[in-house]
Amino acid sequence: MKRNNLKSIGSEMYSFIVDLFPICRSITGDGARKTLCYLKDIVNDLNIYEIPCGTKVFDWTIPEEWNINEAWIQDSSGNIIIDFKKNNLHVVGYSEPVNKTIKLSELRDYLYTLPDQPDAIPYVTSYYKKRWGFCLSYSQFKTLADGNYKVFIDSNFSNGVLNYGEIIIKGKSDKEILLSTYICHPSMANNELSGPVVTIALAKWLKTRNNLFTYRIIFIPETIGSLTYLSKHLNHLKSHVIAGFNITCVGDNREYSYLPSRNGSTLSDRIALHVLNHIAPKFKKYTWLDRGSDERQYCAPGVDLPIASIMRTKYGEYPEYHTSLDDLSLVNPEGLEGAYHALKTSIEGLEKNCIPIVTVQGEPNLGSRNLYENISVKNIRNSKKSILNLLTYADGKEDLLSIADKINIPIADLYEDAKLLESHNLLFLNEIK
Amino acid sequence: MKRNNLKSIGSEMYSFIVDLFPICRSITGDGARKTLCYLKDIVNDLNIYEIPCGTKVFDWTIPEEWNINEAWIQDSSGNIIIDFKKNNLHVVGYSEPVNKTIKLSELRDYLYTLPDQPDAIPYVTSYYKKRWGFCLSYSQFKTLADGNYKVFIDSNFSNGVLNYGEIIIKGKSDKEILLSTYICHPSMANNELSGPVVTIALAKWLKTRNNLFTYRIIFIPETIGSLTYLSKHLNHLKSHVIAGFNITCVGDNREYSYLPSRNGSTLSDRIALHVLNHIAPKFKKYTWLDRGSDERQYCAPGVDLPIASIMRTKYGEYPEYHTSLDDLSLVNPEGLEGAYHALKTSIEGLEKNCIPIVTVQGEPNLGSRNLYENISVKNIRNSKKSILNLLTYADGKEDLLSIADKINIPIADLYEDAKLLESHNLLFLNEIK
Amino acid sequence: MKRNNLKSIGSEMYSFIVDLFPICRSITGDGARKTLCYLKDIVNDLNIYEIPCGTKVFDWTIPEEWNINEAWIQDSSGNIIIDFKKNNLHVVGYSEPVNKTIKLSELRDYLYTLPDQPDAIPYVTSYYKKRWGFCLSYSQFKTLADGNYKVFIDSNFSNGVLNYGEIIIKGKSDKEILLSTYICHPSMANNELSGPVVTIALAKWLKTRNNLFTYRIIFIPETIGSLTYLSKHLNHLKSHVIAGFNITCVGDNREYSYLPSRNGSTLSDRIALHVLNHIAPKFKKYTWLDRGSDERQYCAPGVDLPIASIMRTKYGEYPEYHTSLDDLSLVNPEGLEGAYHALKTSIEGLEKNCIPIVTVQGEPNLGSRNLYENISVKNIRNSKKSILNLLTYADGKEDLLSIADKINIPIADLYEDAKLLESHNLLFLNEIK
Repeated sequence: MKRNNLKSIGSEMYSFIVDLFPICRSITGDGARKTLCYLKDIVNDLNIYEIPCGTKVFDWTIPEEWNINEAWIQDSSGNIIIDFKKNNLHVVGYSEPVNKTIKLSELRDYLYTLPDQPDAIPYVTSYYKKRWGFCLSYSQFKTLADGNYKVFIDSNFSNGVLNYGEIIIKGKSDKEILLSTYICHPSMANNELSGPVVTIALAKWLKTRNNLFTYRIIFIPETIGSLTYLSKHLNHLKSHVIAGFNITCVGDNREYSYLPSRNGSTLSDRIALHVLNHIAPKFKKYTWLDRGSDERQYCAPGVDLPIASIMRTKYGEYPEYHTSLDDLSLVNPEGLEGAYHALKTSIEGLEKNCIPIVTVQGEPNLGSRNLYENISVKNIRNSKKSILNLLTYADGKEDLLSIADKINIPIADLYEDAKLLESHNLLFLNEIK
Repeated sequence: MKRNNLKSIGSEMYSFIVDLFPICRSITGDGARKTLCYLKDIVNDLNIYEIPCGTKVFDWTIPEEWNINEAWIQDSSGNIIIDFKKNNLHVVGYSEPVNKTIKLSELRDYLYTLPDQPDAIPYVTSYYKKRWGFCLSYSQFKTLADGNYKVFIDSNFSNGVLNYGEIIIKGKSDKEILLSTYICHPSMANNELSGPVVTIALAKWLKTRNNLFTYRIIFIPETIGSLTYLSKHLNHLKSHVIAGFNITCVGDNREYSYLPSRNGSTLSDRIALHVLNHIAPKFKKYTWLDRGSDERQYCAPGVDLPIASIMRTKYGEYPEYHTSLDDLSLVNPEGLEGAYHALKTSIEGLEKNCIPIVTVQGEPNLGSRNLYENISVKNIRNSKKSILNLLTYADGKEDLLSIADKINIPIADLYEDAKLLESHNLLFLNEIK
Repeated sequence: MKRNNLKSIGSEMYSFIVDLFPICRSITGDGARKTLCYLKDIVNDLNIYEIPCGTKVFDWTIPEEWNINEAWIQDSSGNIIIDFKKNNLHVVGYSEPVNKTIKLSELRDYLYTLPDQPDAIPYVTSYYKKRWGFCLSYSQFKTLADGNYKVFIDSNFSNGVLNYGEIIIKGKSDKEILLSTYICHPSMANNELSGPVVTIALAKWLKTRNNLFTYRIIFIPETIGSLTYLSKHLNHLKSHVIAGFNITCVGDNREYSYLPSRNGSTLSDRIALHVLNHIAPKFKKYTWLDRGSDERQYCAPGVDLPIASIMRTKYGEYPEYHTSLDDLSLVNPEGLEGAYHALKTSIEGLEKNCIPIVTVQGEPNLGSRNLYENISVKNIRNSKKSILNLLTYADGKEDLLSIADKINIPIADLYEDAKLLESHNLLFLNEIK
């Protein structure tokens, strides 16, 4: 039953990716807006915000809004040999308009290929310096004959906005868990449509629960979006966020991986390691030196939010990364479901975490409460060992997560023991912080 | 000479076990009292205390006193097939009286066996829930023919007392070392007559010394006894006890083992590790998760006494554990002597521990005091290296035990160096705390 | 060009050793003075101090000044079989005068040999107990025929002085780096003429720089000299010295080694480990238990200066140590140059160390400053990775050295990045302390 349910979540998330895949997203523009509207249809609480281009965000300035209608290259015989309509990776992101005929020798300076991956169209952007360019497979590049080519890009820059989406799900506590994902990549699947779809599925699930914590879930363009969001909310975030995840590369089914926060031992790091150790013990552990996504902003000096990453195969670590090969065949329902499950289990673990404090001195008499065998026979004790272990460590100096790690059992299981002991007035369960 | 002396201690302790083995002990009753009287004959300072049944001790209540005269099972031919007189493990500890004839099919519910150890009679108790039962070897169990059996247990419960023994040996300091052992197990040898006999031998030895510390040596029933003792003395113990050992499973000659305190780095843990590293470097190191004796009470949250265990083969870790096979053939003078020696060396180490503080700046001139060669020739230096090492670490920030561990020599040897340097006014030796 | 330059420094240092080798040095006397005068000719700022014999220095007293003119043994045939003129190791250091004829059987008590190294003359001293003696190879010792021998030592003790040299090179800061080496060993090369010649070369180089720190460079007799220097300057040194090295055994070309300060994690230890990890990753790491030179005084309890040792093959660890085999063939320009380079690089590292603090929140926009590619293409990022890593760790909580270790690049390289970022107002570089 549960398995089926999870399976259907994987399939549902995959269907979101299929729908969103064709949209040409960038850090600004219609593609990002369409994507946010699609996500809002799934969880209506998603609010879409816009920040004017030109706004200073810390050391950066939001660039002009970029939109594109059409782009192609025509050879001297009149054949359209490269067409943005066929694959939006064909155009360098933020390309300026162009409309001219040039020789191959000149054109080459505007063409991007990956000789080592001859069948892949690379993903190239130039947000902060005006350029134009086309991306194509090296296989195709090699076939280009000398002669004239007409290059045409119908794009435009405008004094528009940067958009992002935000869902706030209030909990009993005003302490917050931050989930952040990005919506700025065009047609690629693991990096990055997996993040938004797993995140919207988590939001949907969180809405069905009575949560202890407040959830702040944001869909932003990478880097400029996180900087923008931080510049507006930094003080609030620093005083409220106790844990969170940057959700990226959560769609394939090859491996699990973890990238720490800069600090490395925040609550987010601890729960991520705990959960992955139990559900995917062979997961790959990266270090802060391997970082490369919005944790760079969230964990920057002076920002220092407790944000870690639970991923499937990490950006930069798989051959299809940032190419047209990162497509609908690379991700699958099982991959998405596995990441969803790891993040959901982590969130549940955070919700269950607490400081247990034993209420009696010495060991409690568990037998009198039918919590332990009241006959002492060799070899029968182990079944209730976790209860004894929980009680012995419940000195108020460490949280349930830490005790679960010492005992090496999932926090969810230990939480059952904790609730049982609480019901017998043997434990206080104090909230974290 | 020393060797012979130790041997005779081993033999003496073994003879105590032989004498005490037949007594049917339990957590209350005549057997425990007889055992305490026997021990008092060895060290007359042992005071026997009694606490009324029904007394609340923390989360527990001292159960009624249990005594037993006779117990047997008679088959339909009139043969006594199981008899408490032959082995007191045959009766479930704290069995209520019974006197009736029942069919084998019904009797089976009251019989305890160990199919995996067909020749062993298991040790079973039910202190806090009224039951009756018999224990027998699985080999015998299989021979039982259908038919009627007369079961007879002449036991009784009374509003009596729980007894424990206490020896206080005053030292120069009112800081205390706690030695605790238990006297509640019927006819078993390693777990547990080895503990009381090694402990009484240590008490005898301690009485011959001028001790720095005060020794508090208690002989109690396990769990309910330690809880009782703690409930009466908790504040005193917390403010006086600086180290101590739970003395159990110290009788066989198979291995040495160590179980830490909950804290794991108390003075007791440090000296136990130090001594075992020197006298039995292959000793087995257990963790707090492997605990199972009175350290559970002594180290409980809020109690937090510094109590570790130095053992031979640990309870629960050898096949004869809690069966009739844990008999006089399992323990031997060598095993007892080895444990006695390890504990005695640990105590001597604690007595010798101190904070050494060098009295001069720079290295002292040892040659002028004939503490070091006054001629410098290659290759002759190592003999006095420990003196130089002691001086270089004697900064008042660490104790002699810590320095001995850094230098990797027994604290007893380093203490000789320390006394020599003290006699030359090169070191102050400050008492711990 | 740089390589040639380094080579010539190695050769220059080797030529100093050749000049100084024949002098008969001891902890006092003409040999030490001649050596100091030679060094002063190289760096004229070297001031030579003298402290009267009989002066109390901590637990020691400076012994009488010792000088020697002549010493030999003549056999019964009138042949000079051992002559101080041929090798000054032939006489036990601080030998009292003697002039008599004795039998071989008596003479043997005054002869020192190394049976395990039959061709080596041992180095023997007796500073604090009046003795006389000769050292010779075991090979020669075995050839001595029975009969009478005339022994003659023309030495004298006088109420003179202990000398040491000191160079102070003022820097911008009054925080000091202490370099200490010893000038008390007679004709031996690795231990010890390598130390003084590498140290004087470092002094010469330091004089050519504008230094941040003040350099205190001392040439002293071992043990009694460091104790004397400490007794005069202890308070000043404790409040000013932030790092330093005891420079000894820096002349052969067999290995690199490191001996920590007593503390083990001072700035000196950190930079020594950093530099050796980069320039000689297979270097040998000794522990404080392996100490044996003036760090024993500098790091003594209560003195606690941050002094570590970067060495080539360490004293006591090579067969030629403290024998006539530690001669001009054991050390060479390459060996000296390697040690010089390691110490120079360490000093440069200390000069470059600082606390970098990023000036913006979130990551700075590096592309806009041409500090990073302004086009995002797969696989091109690594070139500027160290800039991003420096920025992410520049939180004001750790120094550049610590960040360089995290990133695993030489501090000199990271310093270039730091200066670049400082020039763009992206980093403050705060001085240490």
